[in-house]
Amino acid sequence: MLYEINEKVITLRREGKSIINFNVGDPDQATPPAIVQAAYDAMVAGQTKYGSSAGAMPLRERLAERYAVEPANVIVTPGSKWAIYSIIHLLLRDGGNLVIPSPHWSSYELIAREVGAELRLLKGDLDSHWAIDVEGLQSLLDDETRLIILNNPNNPTSKVLDRRNVQALVDVANERQIPILSDETYADISFTPVKNILEYTGNHIFVNSFSKTFAMTGWRIGFAILDRALVEKLVAFNQISISNVPLFLQAAAVKALDLMDDIAHTMREIYRRRAELACSLLADTKLQFTKPDAPFYLFPRCDVDAEELAFDLLDRGVAVVPGTAFGDYNTYFRISLTNPDDAIQRGLETIAAAFK
Amino acid sequence: MLYEINEKVITLRREGKSIINFNVGDPDQATPPAIVQAAYDAMVAGQTKYGSSAGAMPLRERLAERYAVEPANVIVTPGSKWAIYSIIHLLLRDGGNLVIPSPHWSSYELIAREVGAELRLLKGDLDSHWAIDVEGLQSLLDDETRLIILNNPNNPTSKVLDRRNVQALVDVANERQIPILSDETYADISFTPVKNILEYTGNHIFVNSFSKTFAMTGWRIGFAILDRALVEKLVAFNQISISNVPLFLQAAAVKALDLMDDIAHTMREIYRRRAELACSLLADTKLQFTKPDAPFYLFPRCDVDAEELAFDLLDRGVAVVPGTAFGDYNTYFRISLTNPDDAIQRGLETIAAAFK
Repeated sequence: MLYEINEKVITLRREGKSIINFNVGDPDQATPPAIVQAAYDAMVAGQTKYGSSAGAMPLRERLAERYAVEPANVIVTPGSKWAIYSIIHLLLRDGGNLVIPSPHWSSYELIAREVGAELRLLKGDLDSHWAIDVEGLQSLLDDETRLIILNNPNNPTSKVLDRRNVQALVDVANERQIPILSDETYADISFTPVKNILEYTGNHIFVNSFSKTFAMTGWRIGFAILDRALVEKLVAFNQISISNVPLFLQAAAVKALDLMDDIAHTMREIYRRRAELACSLLADTKLQFTKPDAPFYLFPRCDVDAEELAFDLLDRGVAVVPGTAFGDYNTYFRISLTNPDDAIQRGLETIAAAFK
Repeated sequence: MLYEINEKVITLRREGKSIINFNVGDPDQATPPAIVQAAYDAMVAGQTKYGSSAGAMPLRERLAERYAVEPANVIVTPGSKWAIYSIIHLLLRDGGNLVIPSPHWSSYELIAREVGAELRLLKGDLDSHWAIDVEGLQSLLDDETRLIILNNPNNPTSKVLDRRNVQALVDVANERQIPILSDETYADISFTPVKNILEYTGNHIFVNSFSKTFAMTGWRIGFAILDRALVEKLVAFNQISISNVPLFLQAAAVKALDLMDDIAHTMREIYRRRAELACSLLADTKLQFTKPDAPFYLFPRCDVDAEELAFDLLDRGVAVVPGTAFGDYNTYFRISLTNPDDAIQRGLETIAAAFK
């Protein structure tokens, strides 16, 4: 559905229709110029040759320092998606199952299917504020479970998990020695601070990206932090597939980390304002949702068929994604607040009008 | 062995030893400044967002025009290696075998192993000037053969296949409807013109790269041309793995194609001169090899154990790769002429001295 809506948006725009695309999680901001400049400087300096399949040491060292691990625990990947794909591929291609709380980013499910892994979804509930049902999760685990995926903050709900909730999940996972892959792509610009998975006990996997924090989606650069044995397997897999992330992009990522505090602060405040605007504009409607803890989605329950709704809203010039793209949520839809403020205002007013 | 030698080179250099690295196929030239500038301009212009998993239309259109196909037949990949990996993955992950004439680029074999495909190597012979034995190849094919890989010009021999030889291979493949994947990474700077696989009859797969022609190895950009049905499967696979090649890198690739004639000419002449130098410096030695038809390797037979030789030459300051990295060639080694001319001269003199 996600791609179907996207195709329709492209067609409508080609026909000259103006569409507010609340359907794509791609920040509207430009990549900060200092980061662009760093990439250019590195190209000019000749960082255009083959690099290590584990990532360039200056970036691995910076990330290791930031997360209090060793550089040998860090792998740089062409997007966090590649980290997630290759980890699932390596852990589950010869069998086993993985457990994912839902609603969930569609890519997890598509990757699991491609790898041929058995996917066990744990349905979450708006009425319990999207907290993860630990007993429910426990009942899905067995000796064949090789991975649990958390997405914290969550896409599409923008919920940050309560720390006691995460601790309870970690305890369950540790008891069975099942690694948790925690995808924390939205954490650095979260309104509510996120305690990262590496700060809990156990042998877990941290995945993050430069995409959202620095408006670098198209650059394809992310990373994972995990145990050395698995890093080495991922490096061997990178050697025969993607080879390496371009060194000049990694130099730009180092610069991004230099400027992190400022950039993340600016981004966070933009999205916080937008989230507040959205909550206020949708407050007097029939839509029900949790207030976002993080950028940049809303996931309202609309009590109508969301696929029909999506096409209906598209006729009114607003693209959203029906909840079915994120699991068994056919009366929910996702709004992505990644448009200039005036477009967000107009788009939200259109949605509000439909649910008065 | 390839990686083992590489690690030793890194260690020796760290110890302050000067090593001429004839072991890596990475051009010593800088990426032409106009290509770097085009990447920068595209970044500044905001081409930093998500792009199509098939590649950006301007680049696909340019490549389609160049190879007289439709844009829908072109897919842009993060390196030609990714094209090869993903094609082998999609065609062979659920069984079957693939046939590869040897000596061969090590990655083909490593990929086949990773995918779990049965690899059937056809051993080639220096004494027949590395021509492919068509009857021998035919005897390796059966109903389970899903792919034949050609590398034309070949790494490590720098041999361009005779067109009648390719035609005979194509006839055999067509009879059984087995696609040939032709990796023509070195073709655009070949001294001997290469007739590309798309110019033969049949439903074959063309793979090429910007790496060698434009000294863009670290940029990770290549492409494949193949039938639409397989393009669509590759696009779906890209969507859940690498997402897209950064748009600003694809803009630089368009610029590279604009400048292709000039750049390819310059590169070709550099490597032609080096190949001639190598042939002349090694002429009066015991080493036997075919004169390179293309950049930038020599693959001499040395009649001694090549792994021992490689470590012996390393002690003398020259890194080469033993033939065992390219198949069953333990009395051969590969020299990569990707160093400044003076280093090439010195390195070849060292090798020549060892085989007087």
